[in-house]
Amino acid sequence: MKGFGMIELNKVGWLEKPVPTITAMDALVKPLAVSPCTSDVHTVWESSVPRKNLILGHEAIVEVVEVGALVKDFKPGDKCILPAITPYWEKVESQMGYHQHSGGMLMGCQYSNFRDGAFGEFFQVIQADGNLALLPEGVSLEDGVMVSDMVPTGFHGADNAEISYGETVAVIGIGPVGLMAVAGANLRGAARIFAVGSREICQKVSKLYGATDLINYKNGDVVGQIKDATHGKPVDKVIIAGGTLEAFEWAMKLVRPAGIISNVNYLATGEYIKINRVDWGLGMGHIKLTGGLMPGGRKNMEYLANLLAYKKLDVNPLITHRFQGFDKIPDALMLMKDKPRDLIKPVVII
Amino acid sequence: MKGFGMIELNKVGWLEKPVPTITAMDALVKPLAVSPCTSDVHTVWESSVPRKNLILGHEAIVEVVEVGALVKDFKPGDKCILPAITPYWEKVESQMGYHQHSGGMLMGCQYSNFRDGAFGEFFQVIQADGNLALLPEGVSLEDGVMVSDMVPTGFHGADNAEISYGETVAVIGIGPVGLMAVAGANLRGAARIFAVGSREICQKVSKLYGATDLINYKNGDVVGQIKDATHGKPVDKVIIAGGTLEAFEWAMKLVRPAGIISNVNYLATGEYIKINRVDWGLGMGHIKLTGGLMPGGRKNMEYLANLLAYKKLDVNPLITHRFQGFDKIPDALMLMKDKPRDLIKPVVII
Amino acid sequence: MKGFGMIELNKVGWLEKPVPTITAMDALVKPLAVSPCTSDVHTVWESSVPRKNLILGHEAIVEVVEVGALVKDFKPGDKCILPAITPYWEKVESQMGYHQHSGGMLMGCQYSNFRDGAFGEFFQVIQADGNLALLPEGVSLEDGVMVSDMVPTGFHGADNAEISYGETVAVIGIGPVGLMAVAGANLRGAARIFAVGSREICQKVSKLYGATDLINYKNGDVVGQIKDATHGKPVDKVIIAGGTLEAFEWAMKLVRPAGIISNVNYLATGEYIKINRVDWGLGMGHIKLTGGLMPGGRKNMEYLANLLAYKKLDVNPLITHRFQGFDKIPDALMLMKDKPRDLIKPVVII
Amino acid sequence: MKGFGMIELNKVGWLEKPVPTITAMDALVKPLAVSPCTSDVHTVWESSVPRKNLILGHEAIVEVVEVGALVKDFKPGDKCILPAITPYWEKVESQMGYHQHSGGMLMGCQYSNFRDGAFGEFFQVIQADGNLALLPEGVSLEDGVMVSDMVPTGFHGADNAEISYGETVAVIGIGPVGLMAVAGANLRGAARIFAVGSREICQKVSKLYGATDLINYKNGDVVGQIKDATHGKPVDKVIIAGGTLEAFEWAMKLVRPAGIISNVNYLATGEYIKINRVDWGLGMGHIKLTGGLMPGGRKNMEYLANLLAYKKLDVNPLITHRFQGFDKIPDALMLMKDKPRDLIKPVVII
Repeated sequence: MKGFGMIELNKVGWLEKPVPTITAMDALVKPLAVSPCTSDVHTVWESSVPRKNLILGHEAIVEVVEVGALVKDFKPGDKCILPAITPYWEKVESQMGYHQHSGGMLMGCQYSNFRDGAFGEFFQVIQADGNLALLPEGVSLEDGVMVSDMVPTGFHGADNAEISYGETVAVIGIGPVGLMAVAGANLRGAARIFAVGSREICQKVSKLYGATDLINYKNGDVVGQIKDATHGKPVDKVIIAGGTLEAFEWAMKLVRPAGIISNVNYLATGEYIKINRVDWGLGMGHIKLTGGLMPGGRKNMEYLANLLAYKKLDVNPLITHRFQGFDKIPDALMLMKDKPRDLIKPVVII
Repeated sequence: MKGFGMIELNKVGWLEKPVPTITAMDALVKPLAVSPCTSDVHTVWESSVPRKNLILGHEAIVEVVEVGALVKDFKPGDKCILPAITPYWEKVESQMGYHQHSGGMLMGCQYSNFRDGAFGEFFQVIQADGNLALLPEGVSLEDGVMVSDMVPTGFHGADNAEISYGETVAVIGIGPVGLMAVAGANLRGAARIFAVGSREICQKVSKLYGATDLINYKNGDVVGQIKDATHGKPVDKVIIAGGTLEAFEWAMKLVRPAGIISNVNYLATGEYIKINRVDWGLGMGHIKLTGGLMPGGRKNMEYLANLLAYKKLDVNPLITHRFQGFDKIPDALMLMKDKPRDLIKPVVII
Repeated sequence: MKGFGMIELNKVGWLEKPVPTITAMDALVKPLAVSPCTSDVHTVWESSVPRKNLILGHEAIVEVVEVGALVKDFKPGDKCILPAITPYWEKVESQMGYHQHSGGMLMGCQYSNFRDGAFGEFFQVIQADGNLALLPEGVSLEDGVMVSDMVPTGFHGADNAEISYGETVAVIGIGPVGLMAVAGANLRGAARIFAVGSREICQKVSKLYGATDLINYKNGDVVGQIKDATHGKPVDKVIIAGGTLEAFEWAMKLVRPAGIISNVNYLATGEYIKINRVDWGLGMGHIKLTGGLMPGGRKNMEYLANLLAYKKLDVNPLITHRFQGFDKIPDALMLMKDKPRDLIKPVVII
Repeated sequence: MKGFGMIELNKVGWLEKPVPTITAMDALVKPLAVSPCTSDVHTVWESSVPRKNLILGHEAIVEVVEVGALVKDFKPGDKCILPAITPYWEKVESQMGYHQHSGGMLMGCQYSNFRDGAFGEFFQVIQADGNLALLPEGVSLEDGVMVSDMVPTGFHGADNAEISYGETVAVIGIGPVGLMAVAGANLRGAARIFAVGSREICQKVSKLYGATDLINYKNGDVVGQIKDATHGKPVDKVIIAGGTLEAFEWAMKLVRPAGIISNVNYLATGEYIKINRVDWGLGMGHIKLTGGLMPGGRKNMEYLANLLAYKKLDVNPLITHRFQGFDKIPDALMLMKDKPRDLIKPVVII
């Protein structure tokens, strides 16, 4: 079979590989719609891990082709959402509530990491009963793809920020994940939402998702602009969904005592996140810093897809570019790498 | 001064009382807008506590008339939201996070209980710095009044239900509190919301607030209707915002293992809430039952009012009847007692 | 192979069954030490579910005999703790944190319910990597057996009570589960612990585990006795680990506003748990009622066993009766049924 | 009246000041027993804030001398525990659960900061009903003093680490606060506790409080020593109660994915806490960093004192040096500054 992926660091291309074999718990699936992700780009062009001959892709709607003997809930022909994170559910880490690190730090993230993914004609989904979710009726293929990674990642940022009704939240970075963090904050009851970003398309869409104040870092100091708008008051929470490590220093200057800084930005480069001792209240200010990979698996897909099915969340404004055909995957990936100013997310319908 | 209240059980009328004296922490205020509450009705006509000569009213926008020597943040002339719950903040219960019971069960609820309230020409607000909140610019008097009790009570029901993104929630009772529970569930990210009630005006407004399914108990068994709609699946959470004690039995049949039943209905009559042993999983099902008085005080008012100020919540559809003038308070109260089918909430602008 | 179990309701005996077959995720094991449980007694003599030909037993140290092809972490010869609860870990309920109800209410409880258990010469453990835990060095067989059910069930009662440092806790029922609830409350930092029970051996042992006040219901009203000791103050939390449904009414009269009543007693009989409306603060008192089956699986076994390995918990005082030999299982079970006054738990070393 | 304090930066001495006047909510008290704190030392010799003429001291048992008109629960002659943190309870921050920052970052910490404290003949306690707690019968003056700051600070470190039963915890720094963090971790159910420190007296006492493994940083790399002992496994939680900012880098290398690093060390010097990007899982590892000032006020004092009253915690091993008489306060403070190797805490009985 054919798949598009990385041949080695900094080099992508079509790969020829055998159709994967599955175990008793797994499913073999084929993609119906996919979207390339910034983390595919990281994997190829910004990582120091020397992966080779890996088929990329982890955002997809798939069709089940074959299931293992122990799979009970899915059958060939089912149309399913693929979660970007597909852990082994029996492991101790999963039992403790952090399946993202099932088997070791970040090891729940298998695709675009060590397992051939959704840019192949076929691929394996381990523990299918735990890692697939039926696409609800009435949700389109292209919308459904956003549930694989963009919605759960952005919403995880909002969730970890433990937002209460009426809070003021700053979201740094408003690419597709940041936009979903805005939407997620809004759906946790945030009142005022600062959206920090510079691209016009993203600013415009952020307003649809509940942003009340747009902050462009090209117009000067982000901390100063926000503090001006709040008359010097700190914000309750900061979600970091983009930017460099400097964003953490901004966040620490913005957030109130006992506030939370919640990161969902994959930090591809840099050595240290630096926390200013004084801003952090001499270690006594109850400011929490946290950050984590999105929750994957079936449950999260089912629940998030319900937001689309019941019209509580419209992800369609995220999709700015559409392609038709398996052979267009490379074009979509290169678009994600080049990030033109009118791009939020591309989708390839296969 | 004059005030409208209860002369004794089952008897209301105008009372003549001295203007209250305040201590160093307090404010003396006068009402600018008020709304009678079902709990005013309970206090007069459905309680067994023999209160006498008590001026009623606890939902109000007020103007500060005078402040005590230790009040730092408010001054005469300030327009403020009055929280229905105004506790003593230094007490151990407040320090533990349940100021509603500061000094004993329900003792944070002072108005319509033991302290003369908002239906008087003037009244006392204890610990003004902790129990008043400025009405934000751009929020009208009549909208602001909804923040005293309706918004926080309904939202508390949703909050205690610990709703996660995409959950299915049933709200039993869709008077003004139930409607705010629907809105609160929606603003915590619920996907599917069953609104259980019979009045047309309430059903219609519930849709504005995010209800996806309307259930009329007059059309038959509530549990059956909901289970039919879900194809037999339990709901994640139930919020009880009205009805009789029987609602708890419905809730227990509706909710999933490890679900939550969250009550914000003031239970005025009946002896026992009954929990079916089998429905409760033989005591092993992790189904939580909780219920509580809304959080009051300045913080909650400020944060909830921000939802109005930033257009995340429109409370205006709640207000179905409007009166002008202090002397119209009795009319508004009797309306609340009689509950005509086109009523959600009346407001009196003074 | 041979196994001791229930032939039908109210009738136990030796059963002859084939050695179970296992799937790719499972292990076949044999018991090295077992203990009968009150829930074995419930299953046979107090249930209305007409089970037949079921080998009983779910508290055990086992030796692995054979493992399926997908099992990675265990091999024949390993000595392991069996958790009483052995769920399917990939199911949505497990992903949501309530694996006890994986596949439906209480369905994580397989042994003594629908799967042949530890009183057989061999038995199947599903998803072995998730449902077995190595017995730590230095922990004896008989002590280890207590980790299957008694420790996690009692500790779960304390855990769900969300005990903070210095709290006052009442534990109703001080059989082996209640004693572990006392120990669990103590290891969450409770200061004053009321142990409610009548048997002398249990009272004595409760003191070893941190009980500060012994309350014998044979000496009169439990609520009155405790309130006398506290000078009328409510307790912070109540753990129900025994008694009849009346215990919930006591609990509601004992607990403070915003307190928690946490049940770990398997409620075998009765129709309704009754909650007094006034005691519950008219539904406004923030008193939470919860109750649930112990968390099973590998993680919980490993962590709880560490308390024994590091000498933070000594379970040996629980074991009052010891038997040698597989054929003594019936004697141990009948002892558990008859509950002589000097019994806490029996163990059978095989 | 006389008081011992700082005349200016780096200079201590006796000050002569008027007896403070109190408001309606306050109490005037005199010290019966006091203990100097490392933060008194920070204030004088390690701070850049140019305080002048400030009477030091915030750990004390006091006698009430006079109360304001609104104080209800205390009267002259009462013997009380003084919490180191004495906030204004009506402020929004207190209502939100972080009274430590009532009125601004760290502003709940008034003594040794901007209000004359316990080393004066008399001093003011604001909002006495919220900020004093009766010394329980049976708790000695010298033991009681440990409840002001050492117990709550150490226990706060354990509390914020959200320890579950059976976890492995590393406590970095085992001065008096670190020792109480060890005790606090033990009383939350930690199994294995690494105590990191070099002084013999502290190591010895740490074992009394539940430490299972002693790690001396003078014997080499702390991370390596702990990882050797665990065979390379990470620990569940790290509490930082001493050391330099480098401790945070150790902690990040020690802790598991989804672990917590909880700081209670007052960070007096240094510019940045540095978080290694890779150790932090590229921002995706769910490792939480938090740190905060102890909770003060009456509630926390009452509950923690109950641990002493009910013999669940023995603080006496902390007290290594005893003085008699008000005039010995300078000697005790200098001892705390000089930190001889046999010192844990000194107490002055007045």
